[in-house]
Formats: sequence, structure tokens, C-alpha cells
Amino acid sequence: MTELILHEYAASRNCYKIRLALAHIGRSYERREYDILKGETRTPRFLATVNANGRIPVLQVGSNFLPESNAALWFLAEGTDLLPDGAFGRADVLRWLFWEQYNHEPNIATLRFWRTYGGGFDEQSPARQATIPDKQAAGEAALKLMDDHLAGRAWFVGDRLSIADIALYAYTHVAADGGFALEPYRHLRAWLERVAAQPGHVTITG
Amino acid sequence: MTELILHEYAASRNCYKIRLALAHIGRSYERREYDILKGETRTPRFLATVNANGRIPVLQVGSNFLPESNAALWFLAEGTDLLPDGAFGRADVLRWLFWEQYNHEPNIATLRFWRTYGGGFDEQSPARQATIPDKQAAGEAALKLMDDHLAGRAWFVGDRLSIADIALYAYTHVAADGGFALEPYRHLRAWLERVAAQPGHVTITG
Repeated sequence: MTELILHEYAASRNCYKIRLALAHIGRSYERREYDILKGETRTPRFLATVNANGRIPVLQVGSNFLPESNAALWFLAEGTDLLPDGAFGRADVLRWLFWEQYNHEPNIATLRFWRTYGGGFDEQSPARQATIPDKQAAGEAALKLMDDHLAGRAWFVGDRLSIADIALYAYTHVAADGGFALEPYRHLRAWLERVAAQPGHVTITG
Repeated sequence: MTELILHEYAASRNCYKIRLALAHIGRSYERREYDILKGETRTPRFLATVNANGRIPVLQVGSNFLPESNAALWFLAEGTDLLPDGAFGRADVLRWLFWEQYNHEPNIATLRFWRTYGGGFDEQSPARQATIPDKQAAGEAALKLMDDHLAGRAWFVGDRLSIADIALYAYTHVAADGGFALEPYRHLRAWLERVAAQPGHVTITG
């Protein structure tokens, strides 16, 4: 089987997603760490060989590099139980992966980053500070949409854990770090516990 | 074959993407129009039946609804020439689809929308105006990354048109409406001409 190398920053939940999927699949891989706070993903060498977009995670498959966390999830999940069997179900998983990157991560993960790694909201540039109220509202809307979706179902798509759950778990279970209270969302909280109770689950430091 | 209905706002390039893919595939479908400027995708009925996220496009497949433009592209492309044959190539297409929604569309399409539909930059809220310089810089970086990628190749992934090209074409070919000059990017301009010259290509009004 082709060798896998995960180019990552271990504390990033976008990187944790991939490690969580790999744990469920039971596939071995090598880890290479880059400190994003020191600009290690913006060096000329990183941009030329790993990812021209200057971001982690990147999943290296043999000599090929695959940026974008959710593309890596898909690559790993194909042919496993982490994707549904039918064509519509697979596309529906992608629907949640795209939604996560457009409506969830830029709000919940970004506010969390500014609040916990970036020195707090008051330390951000005026341009960033101006976006905070909109990001707070959009993040709340995202959590509510997830809670509503989970009202009548155990998993985001189909009847078992998929990479849609894994992608959404990554930043939802630490949403409090971004200033989001999960208390109002009981279906969401039950789902977080369900994901964490699955055989094969690992925490971010696991 | 299951009936397809495209819930859309015809002028949206996220909707055009899907029509362009359908034209290449040669599949028939019904169109249902919603005026996003009049809030027709935020009505209780739309939110309850079509998309709880209040956005178009949504591809309806029989009685199932699939939000997110790039998830719809994937659903339509599976089993056609619009996706590569190998597992890595398919994931690499997804890499570009995720990159488009995270690094390209929120900058280039959003500035275009504010500039052409939203009354111009001066009419936006102070919070939005504060984000314009960052969005301009990120949009330029996205165009440069595309141009660099295309320096040695005809298509984004593999050796033929894929849904990666279709997704990226949608807002790149109208980037000037957002204030982005394509003149510096000759590989990108050649690729735009290549996409438009493909058999089966349709324009947004085609």
C-alpha cells in the first residue's frame, strides 16, 4: 500500500480530522510537523514542494501531495465504511464537507484561532475585529442548523459514522474556545458524545 | 433515470457551474428560479423543504435535495469523463473544489457581488468595507496560484476537462466584475479560452 505522510500542525483541528479518519481506518502513516505560528508553511521550499497555497494539512500519497483537509478525508474514506454506499449518499457527505468549509470553519474555527492562539479578539487588526459580530452570528447559525439536522437522526448522512461527522466534529467539539456555548443544542451535544464513543475514536492528543 | 430539478438563481455563477456540467453530460433537467435579492431562498417553505441553509443552488434528485454547488457537480460527474479515472486524481479534483470555495469564491465572487449587484463597495456596511482590502489581496493570490499551476498544464487535474475546471471557470471568467484584472495571468487566460472552446460548452445565458 502506498506510503502516507501527513504534513501538519498537530494542534490544528483540520489536521486532527485526518488523524481521526486514519485511526478509524487503522492505516499507518508518518507525521511531519510545521509550526504555522512561525511561518513554516510559507517558506519557499514548502510552497514549491508541499502546497503552493501555504497551508496544512497536506496528505502526501507516495510522491503526490494532496492539500485541503476534506479532500484528504475523501481519499482515505473511499472504499471504507466511512462513506455511504449509494451515489446520492456520497454526494450528500460532500455537501456537508463543503458546508463545513464555507459556513462552519471560517466562523467557528477562525474566532477560536483569534481568541486562543492569536492573543484574543482585542489583539486583532481593525479589519478582523469588524468581522467578529458577523462571524459570531454565522457560527451560531451553523450550530443551530447542525442541531436541527440531528433532531431526528444519529449521524449526518445515512445510519453510521462517515467523514461528514468526522469533519464536523473537529471544530464543533471545541467551539467553546471560540466563545460559542453548546448548552442550547442538545441534539448536537448528544451527537458529539456519540462520535467520541465510537470504537476507534482518538482525541487530538491520542 | 431519476428526474433532476435545479433550484437556482440563474445569474449566480454557482448555479451556472451546474448547468455547464449538465450541458457537457447532455442530461436534461428542470429549472426553478428564486430571486435571492428578494429573499426567496429565505422563506419558511424554502428553508423547510429545499435547503435549511437558505442558499441556492440545490440539485433535487427525485425527492432528495442536494445543496452546495460543488457537491452537485460531483454527483453529476461520477461515472462520466468529467472526473479522472484514478483515486488520487478524483481526490485532487476535490482539492480544487474545496480550494475554490475557501480561497477563491469568498474573495472574487463576493467582491463581484458587492460591486455589481450590491450597489458598489461604498454602499456596503462598514464591517464589509473593512474586509475589502484582505479580499482583494486573497483574490489576487488565488488568481496567481491558478496561473502558476497552469504554467505547465492544460487542465487543473489530469489531461482533460474535469469539474475542477468547470467550478473554477464560473467566477474566474467574470473576475473583472470584481475589480480583478486578468491581463497579468497569461496561462489563466489561455485556460479560460480552452474551457470556452470545448465541445458542449455553454455560456451563462446559453
